[in-house]
Amino acid sequence: MAKLRFQISVSLDGFVAGPNPSEEHPLGEGGEQLHEWVFKLAAWRKPHGREGGEEGISNAIFEESTQNLGAVVMGRNMFGGGPGPWGEDPWMGWWGDEPPFHSPVFVLTHHERAPLEMKGGTTFTFVTDGVESALDQAKEAAGGKDVSLGGGASVAQQYLRAGLMDELQLNLVPVVLGAGTRLFEGLEGTDIRLEQTRVVEAPGVAHLFYRVNR
Amino acid sequence: MAKLRFQISVSLDGFVAGPNPSEEHPLGEGGEQLHEWVFKLAAWRKPHGREGGEEGISNAIFEESTQNLGAVVMGRNMFGGGPGPWGEDPWMGWWGDEPPFHSPVFVLTHHERAPLEMKGGTTFTFVTDGVESALDQAKEAAGGKDVSLGGGASVAQQYLRAGLMDELQLNLVPVVLGAGTRLFEGLEGTDIRLEQTRVVEAPGVAHLFYRVNR
Repeated sequence: MAKLRFQISVSLDGFVAGPNPSEEHPLGEGGEQLHEWVFKLAAWRKPHGREGGEEGISNAIFEESTQNLGAVVMGRNMFGGGPGPWGEDPWMGWWGDEPPFHSPVFVLTHHERAPLEMKGGTTFTFVTDGVESALDQAKEAAGGKDVSLGGGASVAQQYLRAGLMDELQLNLVPVVLGAGTRLFEGLEGTDIRLEQTRVVEAPGVAHLFYRVNR
Repeated sequence: MAKLRFQISVSLDGFVAGPNPSEEHPLGEGGEQLHEWVFKLAAWRKPHGREGGEEGISNAIFEESTQNLGAVVMGRNMFGGGPGPWGEDPWMGWWGDEPPFHSPVFVLTHHERAPLEMKGGTTFTFVTDGVESALDQAKEAAGGKDVSLGGGASVAQQYLRAGLMDELQLNLVPVVLGAGTRLFEGLEGTDIRLEQTRVVEAPGVAHLFYRVNR
């Protein structure tokens, strides 16, 4: 059966973004350190139009985590454009004319908006009736492949609380941010049963894999 | 040079103890799950007077983490007996007549107390003049071997903030506690430079090793 898979980079103290996000620091102060391991990889650089890159363990892990995916679910913050109604000249996403998803993307929002078709096979569909509906639509669109949960932390927490996440991959980066957005928050009293399925050592990052049991 | 080494078991959401610690749940609700991997090990059971146990990867890691240690530093909470002055019939520690340390132990406290000599080579010395003094005394007593930081979280944070920790080993357990005592807290603005030195996959736990650079 198609699975909902989530992978994210996290600091050793549990943050997925640093404090005080701004235009200058969209991932918060220090937050870009969480993603340095990705930006170096050949498998990340190629779809982002850049040459070269590393082809080691993390590259293989990254390639694997992008395979057999047929659709994406993400939160409004991840799509961007600030909170509130979309307005007359609405935000088109962070990714330019041809976003790197090349698949249907379902954006969770409280504000209705017509679907947005981009170049390269990416279509943004705006879902206003909750996480379960977004996942159902994404699974339907994925045609038997898995669905990727794009983030951010708040959406991941919603799917964990709803018992709808199947696989969790943490890329644990050896930095201490001290403050910012926590991956695990507001989960007190939620019965989350994880099973460690794989641990991979790579230069400057630990890749940790978990199955979420029901 | 002798190093200050710290190893601790931590939940996936960053807690080293669960919420609401009590006599029934000294490690907080759910906190005992963090240590199940240890209690199963032959290398843990033997010094605690129990037979049998597992001899796999975690056992080797646990044995390694107890080698070349000449002294221990721990906080008052770890030693136990509640906060405040020691009183007339003072607490003698959680461990009975013959504690499993078999080495000098330096207990950080705000309340003076004469040293306490136990069976099997464990002596508790109570240090009231701060983390640096406790470490100096422990290094002196360790005679060239390393010093183990026994915990808890608050003492670990003090040593991290003071830049006095050399090696950090996290045993990451796939449970989500949701609340409790965080390992990393109150570290905002502290410049902590970690280097991942090793990652070891073991059944039901990931052993993560870091060097703390100055």
